[in-house]
Amino acid sequence: MDSNLVIVGTMAIDALETPFGKKDSVFGGSASYAAYAASFFHPPSIVSIVGEDFPKEYRQLLEARGIDMSHVEVRPGKTFRWRGRYGADLNVAETLETQINVLKDLHPRWNGQKTPEYLFLANVDPHVQLELLDQLERPRIKLVAADTMNFWIQGSRQALSKVLARIDLLVVNDGEARLLTKESSLIRAARKIQAEGPGIVVIKKGEHGVMLFHGERFFVLPAYPLEEVFDPTGAGDTFGGAFIGYLVKQNRIDFPTLCRAATCGSIMASFTVEEFGLDRLKTLSLQEIEERLKQFKQISNIP
Amino acid sequence: MDSNLVIVGTMAIDALETPFGKKDSVFGGSASYAAYAASFFHPPSIVSIVGEDFPKEYRQLLEARGIDMSHVEVRPGKTFRWRGRYGADLNVAETLETQINVLKDLHPRWNGQKTPEYLFLANVDPHVQLELLDQLERPRIKLVAADTMNFWIQGSRQALSKVLARIDLLVVNDGEARLLTKESSLIRAARKIQAEGPGIVVIKKGEHGVMLFHGERFFVLPAYPLEEVFDPTGAGDTFGGAFIGYLVKQNRIDFPTLCRAATCGSIMASFTVEEFGLDRLKTLSLQEIEERLKQFKQISNIP
Repeated sequence: MDSNLVIVGTMAIDALETPFGKKDSVFGGSASYAAYAASFFHPPSIVSIVGEDFPKEYRQLLEARGIDMSHVEVRPGKTFRWRGRYGADLNVAETLETQINVLKDLHPRWNGQKTPEYLFLANVDPHVQLELLDQLERPRIKLVAADTMNFWIQGSRQALSKVLARIDLLVVNDGEARLLTKESSLIRAARKIQAEGPGIVVIKKGEHGVMLFHGERFFVLPAYPLEEVFDPTGAGDTFGGAFIGYLVKQNRIDFPTLCRAATCGSIMASFTVEEFGLDRLKTLSLQEIEERLKQFKQISNIP
Repeated sequence: MDSNLVIVGTMAIDALETPFGKKDSVFGGSASYAAYAASFFHPPSIVSIVGEDFPKEYRQLLEARGIDMSHVEVRPGKTFRWRGRYGADLNVAETLETQINVLKDLHPRWNGQKTPEYLFLANVDPHVQLELLDQLERPRIKLVAADTMNFWIQGSRQALSKVLARIDLLVVNDGEARLLTKESSLIRAARKIQAEGPGIVVIKKGEHGVMLFHGERFFVLPAYPLEEVFDPTGAGDTFGGAFIGYLVKQNRIDFPTLCRAATCGSIMASFTVEEFGLDRLKTLSLQEIEERLKQFKQISNIP
């Protein structure tokens, strides 16, 4: 069934190497992580493309969470594949191999019964983001959020500028914010991004937390402290998906709700990095989320 | 008049180069920054040594804040001098020149009328820290805190271990914590430091905030967000001095008070880095501190 939240992005089969081990055939992709994380708050519809080799159990994993997969196209050919490695510095992923495969044919079509009110353009070619934007009438949409990455900032800046002009919220990491604006100060970087369009800018700083800018206001949050990060893959997508999922659940976009959404995004990302791929989220309960949220407030709110 | 808070450390004449300009003859040193910052909460006594060239206006600056300078020895010769440079990455100071001068003769003597209840061993040779510790009877002291740096961790690890075994609180930055323990995880690093002695460990992460460990409990705080850092010199010493000064003012060492002390330390450091040396603190009012504290809670507490 069509969801009120549509997420467009990649669906992938990853191969990961971290200092703690390696694993082939890990379910990945920006839309997969974002949708899975969002589903704890509001199950979304995914718009994406996969090949004939896309494992049935991946599809079932998402459907079991109430995620609408009816807008994911299955094409002859192979699913997008990414092979990456993390060294001692888990903040930096080294891409060993990328097989675009059917992803090159991703031309998103929204043929749902109704127009969603919330849209998350997860990390994907900005031309794809624009194609979907073109199909969804603006007056009906309450919030359009987007993510991106260095590859598009450097290679598709013009298309990305068009995206920025049409979205309400951008979520990027600190390196991407700096690259996008050529500003070392993250506060000035956020202001520059806001000037290009989105009134809300969220900057993810990995183990150092999050900064959120909403008009003139801002919010800073440390990361939930973890003794060890096992696999950082998908942490940013998890953050974005949980963030927007929380907003949809609340159906509000005021400042305190945005701050709480950033907190939920951080907590969800802190779970994702504890195991390979989606493994930790697969076993995650709402009670565990509630407990970590409560603990996070206890350890980070100034008494 | 003897203070209930004694701070031992260096007093220096610095020459600084930052991307925003350079300045010679800047009043510096770990004890100077720490004492000046502490004075906003509880004026301390300084134990240190200076040369005959120590400018009268530096002394007056501290005395005007109620800081007891009667335990600062004046020796024939020149005051300790440090010349440093910061590049685009303001987190890293490059030492261009160090003139130890009279600092090599620093053998702290406490000949005050009474034993202080609070002691801050600011960043200085751990042998000097031990010499002062030897003179202050332990039963009378409520809290001994210490700071250190890479130079002593690498060059005087044995003396530093003796210091660690005798203090209640260590304040170090993230790089120092990792160097001290050979642990990349800051949580594990803090636990290892605690095992060496201090039940309270505070890890300063510069622009990324602070982590505080007290027994099994911990607290995380982002940094107060600044658009630009002008000169980071003395930020860590300011943090430590304000932290301990706040504890003395409250005369409590429970967990919520420690969290508030870390918040005050962060705020005070955020002022220090806004101008050269002590320039910003010189014009700082209690009202400005209160306002920034209030704003910090507003922008960082999870609603």
